[in-house]
Amino acid sequence: MLTDHKNVRITAGYWREKADLNRDVTMNAVYDRFHESGRIDAFRCDWKEGKPNRPHFFWDSDVAKWMEGAAYILGQEENPALEEKVEALIDEIEKNQGEDGYFNIYFTVVEPEKRWSNRDCHELYCAGHLMEAACAYYNATGRGRFLSVMEKYADYIAKVFTVEHSAAFNTPGHEEIELALYKMYKTTGKEKYLDLMKYFLETRGQPDNKESQIFGEAHYAQSHAPIREQHEAYGHSVRAMYLYSAMADLAAETGDKELLAACRDLFEDVTERKMYITGGIGSTNIGEAFTIAYDLPNAHAYTETCASIGLMFFANRMFRADPVRSSKYADIVELEMYNGALSGLSLDGEKFFYENPLEIRLRDRQRITATHDREHWPITQRVRIFGCSCCPPNINRLLPALGDYFYGWDEEEGAVYVNQFGTSEFTLGDVKVTQTTGYPMDGTVKITSNVPVYVRIPGWCGRFFKADRTHVTANGYARFEPGEFTVTFEMKPMLVSANVEAVNNIGKAALRYGPFIYCAEGADNGDDVHTLFFDRAMISMAKAEYSTFFGAPVITLPGLRIKSMTRALYAPLDEQYEYAPLRMIPYAAFANRGECDMLVWLNVR
Amino acid sequence: MLTDHKNVRITAGYWREKADLNRDVTMNAVYDRFHESGRIDAFRCDWKEGKPNRPHFFWDSDVAKWMEGAAYILGQEENPALEEKVEALIDEIEKNQGEDGYFNIYFTVVEPEKRWSNRDCHELYCAGHLMEAACAYYNATGRGRFLSVMEKYADYIAKVFTVEHSAAFNTPGHEEIELALYKMYKTTGKEKYLDLMKYFLETRGQPDNKESQIFGEAHYAQSHAPIREQHEAYGHSVRAMYLYSAMADLAAETGDKELLAACRDLFEDVTERKMYITGGIGSTNIGEAFTIAYDLPNAHAYTETCASIGLMFFANRMFRADPVRSSKYADIVELEMYNGALSGLSLDGEKFFYENPLEIRLRDRQRITATHDREHWPITQRVRIFGCSCCPPNINRLLPALGDYFYGWDEEEGAVYVNQFGTSEFTLGDVKVTQTTGYPMDGTVKITSNVPVYVRIPGWCGRFFKADRTHVTANGYARFEPGEFTVTFEMKPMLVSANVEAVNNIGKAALRYGPFIYCAEGADNGDDVHTLFFDRAMISMAKAEYSTFFGAPVITLPGLRIKSMTRALYAPLDEQYEYAPLRMIPYAAFANRGECDMLVWLNVR
Repeated sequence: MLTDHKNVRITAGYWREKADLNRDVTMNAVYDRFHESGRIDAFRCDWKEGKPNRPHFFWDSDVAKWMEGAAYILGQEENPALEEKVEALIDEIEKNQGEDGYFNIYFTVVEPEKRWSNRDCHELYCAGHLMEAACAYYNATGRGRFLSVMEKYADYIAKVFTVEHSAAFNTPGHEEIELALYKMYKTTGKEKYLDLMKYFLETRGQPDNKESQIFGEAHYAQSHAPIREQHEAYGHSVRAMYLYSAMADLAAETGDKELLAACRDLFEDVTERKMYITGGIGSTNIGEAFTIAYDLPNAHAYTETCASIGLMFFANRMFRADPVRSSKYADIVELEMYNGALSGLSLDGEKFFYENPLEIRLRDRQRITATHDREHWPITQRVRIFGCSCCPPNINRLLPALGDYFYGWDEEEGAVYVNQFGTSEFTLGDVKVTQTTGYPMDGTVKITSNVPVYVRIPGWCGRFFKADRTHVTANGYARFEPGEFTVTFEMKPMLVSANVEAVNNIGKAALRYGPFIYCAEGADNGDDVHTLFFDRAMISMAKAEYSTFFGAPVITLPGLRIKSMTRALYAPLDEQYEYAPLRMIPYAAFANRGECDMLVWLNVR
Repeated sequence: MLTDHKNVRITAGYWREKADLNRDVTMNAVYDRFHESGRIDAFRCDWKEGKPNRPHFFWDSDVAKWMEGAAYILGQEENPALEEKVEALIDEIEKNQGEDGYFNIYFTVVEPEKRWSNRDCHELYCAGHLMEAACAYYNATGRGRFLSVMEKYADYIAKVFTVEHSAAFNTPGHEEIELALYKMYKTTGKEKYLDLMKYFLETRGQPDNKESQIFGEAHYAQSHAPIREQHEAYGHSVRAMYLYSAMADLAAETGDKELLAACRDLFEDVTERKMYITGGIGSTNIGEAFTIAYDLPNAHAYTETCASIGLMFFANRMFRADPVRSSKYADIVELEMYNGALSGLSLDGEKFFYENPLEIRLRDRQRITATHDREHWPITQRVRIFGCSCCPPNINRLLPALGDYFYGWDEEEGAVYVNQFGTSEFTLGDVKVTQTTGYPMDGTVKITSNVPVYVRIPGWCGRFFKADRTHVTANGYARFEPGEFTVTFEMKPMLVSANVEAVNNIGKAALRYGPFIYCAEGADNGDDVHTLFFDRAMISMAKAEYSTFFGAPVITLPGLRIKSMTRALYAPLDEQYEYAPLRMIPYAAFANRGECDMLVWLNVR
């Protein structure tokens, strides 16, 4: 099963526009902020005590992710200005690589004596991101300089960790290098990188190894058990996603059934018990982590943008790894694309959320206590850069590589999977599949193919789809013979409820339209969106209308607003509602019109 | 307006039983725990470094409150064993009082060099509680030894604070001595104690005075503004209640209209915007404090037992101070008596809550995070003692003095106010009023009186009361001429909603029956009470039945339980309910049958 964005051209529509925004605005915005903050110049490795912009130990990775995004763009089109920036960075990396192959800004200029001494200092994580960028750059340009530098680094890491055992730890404190090494293996064809990937994966969580626990807690970095014994998602959610992605890579590579079973359990635990309706994961800021099943507080959701992107990585790899080609993997990818991951980026492409809450009530932020409030609240407006700015360049590298998620090639059957919808074409040798569609504005997709095609029936659509050609359905896909045909997914606004185990959402519903989850913002609905109710009886009156501002459908529908009949704090139950027209916008687009209240889960009457 | 429990005998019924429980069980339970923890022996003032049970700076007050409760009991009946314990404590206080009049265990044996140096070390607070105990003991026994010791202490405090100004601060970090000094004034007739009380009250919150701020925050101890400029409740809720009580005392004493207006505003802010339906106050554990209006989280409610008792103090003083004799003051007293204050005590009389949450979900307590959870949760079972054990002896002194709250004597009119209901008699010279009633099991109260009587019409009853004699109603009271008559308050289970500003309670209701607020416990309703709904249409089917175990009515009614039709985390809205018989118990009696889930606010269908 191959999926590679190099075989895909997204030619028009929603994701073409987002990819263009990334190329034209977001890439520059992130680069400029990184430059201003010293992250770019840090690659010169000439920082000294007393100078401004002391490098942080995760800076290499921030820039590496941006470089990876640049590489994907360069693989699709000429862009000399972008190429020059990347080459300049590669110059510095090459120049400042140690004789032994080591490259890390922080441990070269700030604490050189502490190399490989602290498991939580992201050395292997930074190395991994640089390797991913090097692979991407090689695949895009055919130029091997960066890849060679990283091969040398990888060889040195193999020596330190698998021969000398000279580091103070033996697995990464933040997983990432595992999936990077898999890319190194796939890019170079050299098994030693697969071996090193396996080493890090298999060593993790083994009893008696040198895994100092971050915050004293093995679960935080998924070191509590060997990988095949991990069946529930724990700890830091981005770390978890990167680990599970690498596990899925390895399961796909080796066909290891026990490992695949663990991956399936983890995927199910994340998506069926620990995921917000937006696709957000990580219910608490404390450790940026998973908590327990069905614990999904809305206002305090942590739901890091990187974690949503990480779940896309994991889901897409599960699609490749799992012989049962269930549409549930691509369903989750779609959920993240349109909601939890996308909400990290402003409509203008220049500002970012790290956390993506499902509820904002500004009044609650005024909550004062007599001892200064130690409560953590997500920010309510996107910003241009963070101190820990991992999310913006993760968006940079996601958007130009979305083709990875659109199609899958099943070599065995000689069939193509259409996982995501948008006007685009897939080409692999003689195989050619094209889609023409207004999706996500409408649910009609015209497909032409010279091989059999499996078309995902979106989970939100259920049985409500039709096609003008015969097909058979299984595992959430409709299989069509080669030719030209049109499938139509019925798009209508619908209310969705949460499992009652998520008790804070009992009595509430969220609005869905096609792949979009909606929210009510104060900007459209007046001061207190918390008093709004969906009216069950009126949902059929909901209307979707394209909004130029949002580039997506906005939903209007009749709703209700509850009123207190007295100023009394408590009074005999006597609910009074007034008619309230609701205007709901795509969740991912919240907070683009100034600070206001926002709510995904509304009460239902 | 006089209200004094010495004029009242509660002869039978609910509160007689609670007072007996306190006398027979709770008084001993608290004394024994205080003895075991070293609090009693600490009064010998012979602790030295290296010995166990290092005194804490609030220990004097813990024991003083117990002594005050003992004094009230001794005023009602002979109890040689109790008297002996009190006398032994007075022996030590007298023996260990300084030449100058000072008495404080901690600052005598632990940090003698730090006397009057730290505003947050409760010196004046401890002094106040000892003074209250001394007044109570004098009034109960006529023996003046303890009172003399405390007069000497008060005189010394006056010298330090108003003549020498030699302390590092000039108002208490924890208010309490203000209302104690008022009792000293009323007990001794000496104006100097009123003057000192006024000094502390008037100095508080004045610009440029020596009020070091606790936790760096003036609001914490209500030092942010002069008392007449305080119109909103802020900060530590027990501190606030004690301050406002003293303010009400002073307003009653002086007729100061500006001060009374501030007291009225504070009372309204607390009871109409910052109080749980149980009467609990203090919405956050951070600073044990008020937050903002309508911020009333249920599971994390702090709602300290002492704060509820403090609100009873404040409300009863407002009844005395406010020439408009509104029933709202005694309504709040009743709410606390049956709910928020009483929940601090177990049914067996031996265990205590400090915090009184309105929601328990044990599953949430398992919430793990990768970095150890810093979330604060109230405990779910009452315990025998706390490290900071202020609440248990506050119950000790409340229950024997409940007569204070039952009746009020309006000297001007020569009329009696019946504020609380229970078989009892009020005697003042020739004036005699008796009540005979099964209240709170039923709402019929037979009253005989030889003076005019104002009978409170409980707020929960509204217009649904009747009487067999003519009367006029105003300000929530029905006025009857002398004689014998019967009033009946219609008691029926009713659903109550919160103002919609308290957004977390939108769509929910609480059950009320007479003065009791109810809750659903897992012990009666199965594992997950959070999936239960009140059924609007079925509320008239609710039945109250006396429970011997609870000594109070239990309510059964038909309700609903919401079910998920699938195991899916999210699914199209398709609410399915099944019939669920609800058994609701008085809130104050929750957690008397082992640990289980509990909920006051249920969803309504």
